Amino acid sequence: MSRTLAKALQPRRLAAIDLGSNSFHLLVANYQDGQLQVVAKLGEKVQLAAGLDDDGALSEEAMQRALACLAQFAPFIEDIAPRHLRVVGTNALRAAHNSQALIERAEALLGHEIEIIAGREEARLIYLGAAHALADVHGKRLIVDIGGGSTEFIIGESFEPLALESLHMGCVAYTRRFFAGGKISEQRFCRAELAALSELANIRRHYLELGWADPVGSSGTIKAVAAVLAASGDSPDEVIHRDGLHALRKRLIACQHLDKVAMQGLKDDRARVFPAGVAILCAIFEAFDLSHMRYSDGALREGVLYDLAGRNTAEDSRLQTLAGLGRRYGIEARQAENVAANATAAFEQVRDSWRLDDEQGQFLAWAAQLHEIGLAISHSQFHRHGAYLLEHSDLPGFSRPEQRALAFLVRAHRRKFPSKELESLPAGLRPRYAQLARLLRLAVVLNHSRPEQPIGDFRLRADGDDLTLSLPEALAEHPLLVDDLQQESAYQRAAGYRLDIDQAMASV
Amino acid sequence: MSRTLAKALQPRRLAAIDLGSNSFHLLVANYQDGQLQVVAKLGEKVQLAAGLDDDGALSEEAMQRALACLAQFAPFIEDIAPRHLRVVGTNALRAAHNSQALIERAEALLGHEIEIIAGREEARLIYLGAAHALADVHGKRLIVDIGGGSTEFIIGESFEPLALESLHMGCVAYTRRFFAGGKISEQRFCRAELAALSELANIRRHYLELGWADPVGSSGTIKAVAAVLAASGDSPDEVIHRDGLHALRKRLIACQHLDKVAMQGLKDDRARVFPAGVAILCAIFEAFDLSHMRYSDGALREGVLYDLAGRNTAEDSRLQTLAGLGRRYGIEARQAENVAANATAAFEQVRDSWRLDDEQGQFLAWAAQLHEIGLAISHSQFHRHGAYLLEHSDLPGFSRPEQRALAFLVRAHRRKFPSKELESLPAGLRPRYAQLARLLRLAVVLNHSRPEQPIGDFRLRADGDDLTLSLPEALAEHPLLVDDLQQESAYQRAAGYRLDIDQAMASV
Repeated sequence: MSRTLAKALQPRRLAAIDLGSNSFHLLVANYQDGQLQVVAKLGEKVQLAAGLDDDGALSEEAMQRALACLAQFAPFIEDIAPRHLRVVGTNALRAAHNSQALIERAEALLGHEIEIIAGREEARLIYLGAAHALADVHGKRLIVDIGGGSTEFIIGESFEPLALESLHMGCVAYTRRFFAGGKISEQRFCRAELAALSELANIRRHYLELGWADPVGSSGTIKAVAAVLAASGDSPDEVIHRDGLHALRKRLIACQHLDKVAMQGLKDDRARVFPAGVAILCAIFEAFDLSHMRYSDGALREGVLYDLAGRNTAEDSRLQTLAGLGRRYGIEARQAENVAANATAAFEQVRDSWRLDDEQGQFLAWAAQLHEIGLAISHSQFHRHGAYLLEHSDLPGFSRPEQRALAFLVRAHRRKFPSKELESLPAGLRPRYAQLARLLRLAVVLNHSRPEQPIGDFRLRADGDDLTLSLPEALAEHPLLVDDLQQESAYQRAAGYRLDIDQAMASV
Repeated sequence: MSRTLAKALQPRRLAAIDLGSNSFHLLVANYQDGQLQVVAKLGEKVQLAAGLDDDGALSEEAMQRALACLAQFAPFIEDIAPRHLRVVGTNALRAAHNSQALIERAEALLGHEIEIIAGREEARLIYLGAAHALADVHGKRLIVDIGGGSTEFIIGESFEPLALESLHMGCVAYTRRFFAGGKISEQRFCRAELAALSELANIRRHYLELGWADPVGSSGTIKAVAAVLAASGDSPDEVIHRDGLHALRKRLIACQHLDKVAMQGLKDDRARVFPAGVAILCAIFEAFDLSHMRYSDGALREGVLYDLAGRNTAEDSRLQTLAGLGRRYGIEARQAENVAANATAAFEQVRDSWRLDDEQGQFLAWAAQLHEIGLAISHSQFHRHGAYLLEHSDLPGFSRPEQRALAFLVRAHRRKFPSKELESLPAGLRPRYAQLARLLRLAVVLNHSRPEQPIGDFRLRADGDDLTLSLPEALAEHPLLVDDLQQESAYQRAAGYRLDIDQAMASV
């Protein structure tokens, strides 16, 4: 049995931490035979979004709440391999100007990188979690997840999302915005609903045209609504009906103040953000003309685990994303593959000296596949345009740090070595990405004449940071290639690296 | 007969000024029945690229040469309508850090805007000029135009370019780089050829795969080579053959110094940049394995005139470019068209008070068509991504200022009014583009709910810079729209503009 196959048959311990705008969650599970068996599950209402001041900065108190919560989570992930763990942050961390300060302290505490994910990536992961929970249900479905700072809307069928959107509205943010001071009134409720309807107008028509058979809600707000309605007898079938929702709306307005919101089925720590959550849900019922919605478990953190399980397998959504980029931007496949082959050949020859791992090799090959993506915008400065596209695009499956790493490699693949851009990467990653960039640059230079087959038979040695490239005699006499390599050697020297070209390779 | 048709049947006086890196050219012609009848033709070797110092700055002397030349051109364009005149700058102005200083003085002198065009746009215009000159020749052709700072390569058939590239090599730039001090040697010649081959490696294989039947050269360098070979008897059929070119190379090396280059058929003012031009041509013969090349008239300035003639007609290449953008980035056609319809309706209601013209209306409609282009990158900040794409993409037919204008309007279409970005436009254009941006924003807000049909029956009045929008009663009661318009009114107020919403429109 191959080593890879043997590894695949062992249960894997996977973990996800979700730093939401309202709650933080930890989920640890064993993954085997396509199933997750939950080992640990923790959640805490940190209410990060409530700690955002008017300038969009997180308060020190909110950061302390967050770190105290993570300190409780930390022991659960101690033994989990870094590649089996993913820590994701959503809207509040996306929005706060000073989230980097919290992230650095939290990363030190957890000993693991935190990824702030884009809204559509969040929606994709939520759908992945929901789709597994609903695997026995057929037909198109609408999934709604009302978070603390954003609300995700996905239409999908089976495991495939057909539309992914994330809107800027959430129960914590709307509590701050429309229920400041705590007063609840018909007018305040209306204003919150109107703001939500305005956000929904951006996606409403497109979603109605796609259509769905089954509307499902998957967040704490919707779980609480279902629980309250069940307790009051307004939801005998455990489904949220429009009438029941409107009755609940009236009961909340009658409470008059957030401090007085108390109902059977509603947990105390949800009460203060419940009216805003219900206002958003009312707007969703209105915009999509829903008569009912049912609650289902399975949300962001489950999606993160299924996504971790699927990586490095045929399911890896990153591969689909890369193929989609290739199509949209018309990347020339032969050149992309030849440069990737050169890059991989270079990587294999220095991986031991430089202690590089499989994942880094994978990233180098992907960057090589994508290095010409910016040509679709313009030939002039296409390495910069490519970096812009990779940095800013919604790339399902990729985290923000992964996107930044790809963007850096593409930015670095030609012309002067971008030392300034390297400085903007996290300090711990710089030496690695400088090495990968140098390998990619060599692969591109060796492929400069765009031959049909990649030049395979070169030899690359690493001695510390110094590289020596040896070429077979036939190539060493090619004046154009020699000239290009001398130029590349000068570029690397200018950035503080040494690349020697040995034109007299004895034997390969 | 309609006014438009009557106008189309009159001969139009068109003019082009080409601020090349080696020479400046003026071409004035009457256009009728698809033909250009030349009225005036001037050219002068300003050698702008020779005035670039090592830091990439134009010297004061070079600027003085440029301005003296334009002072001679100025009387020829005095009576020509601005929309029938185009002044384009190419590589030297693209490359110089301080070209803005020259452009401002030159614009004041000519009383007309100068556009620095991108390399591919230059290639497109060159092909347009060459294609008209070669209209009676069938089959695929390769057009080569060796300029002072860049060399363009186009493969095309009939009037359609199949490949457009501009490489960073030219006879003035290469004279500075490889023949500094004036010495000519075999080694210097080789180094220039090698550098050119390195540039050519980027496009060589793609071009060889496309193939061509007829290689044609269209620049001063190639005209001079043909003339010298004809004078020496090395080109009996007026075609440049490989053997003749190599004989010329030897003769030039034998001259030993640029000051001593003198040959029958070669004008004195070309002599000093001739060896570099011949080295580039030798590299082109080598890279594309050419046995011969013929010279043809018809270059950038002719292309500019044909392009001016074709604008606002079915030939307008800008329309093809816009359609191509729509396809690549998957713009939703209905939304784009509805917003364009709203924008045009708004435009028509204020065009008299604001003295707007057809061209501005056209730009507003195009910006409306493109306003969602950035969604292909990400929903988050898509107005910024759209502006990036429009600013940096090669958009055949559009000049740089046109691209910047479109980029600004797309950047400005939602969220806060971008006053800072407005400040970065030329001062003279700011009030206009602020007006157009305000109209586009209104069109987007009115279409926020993405209806199937655009909202047609609103009324817009301008009183100075102040706008008043009146809605029909049915719409005025739509709380979502009213809320959006109040928000927009606040955004405009924050930028110093007044937008009043009149909810009680008496009659339409």
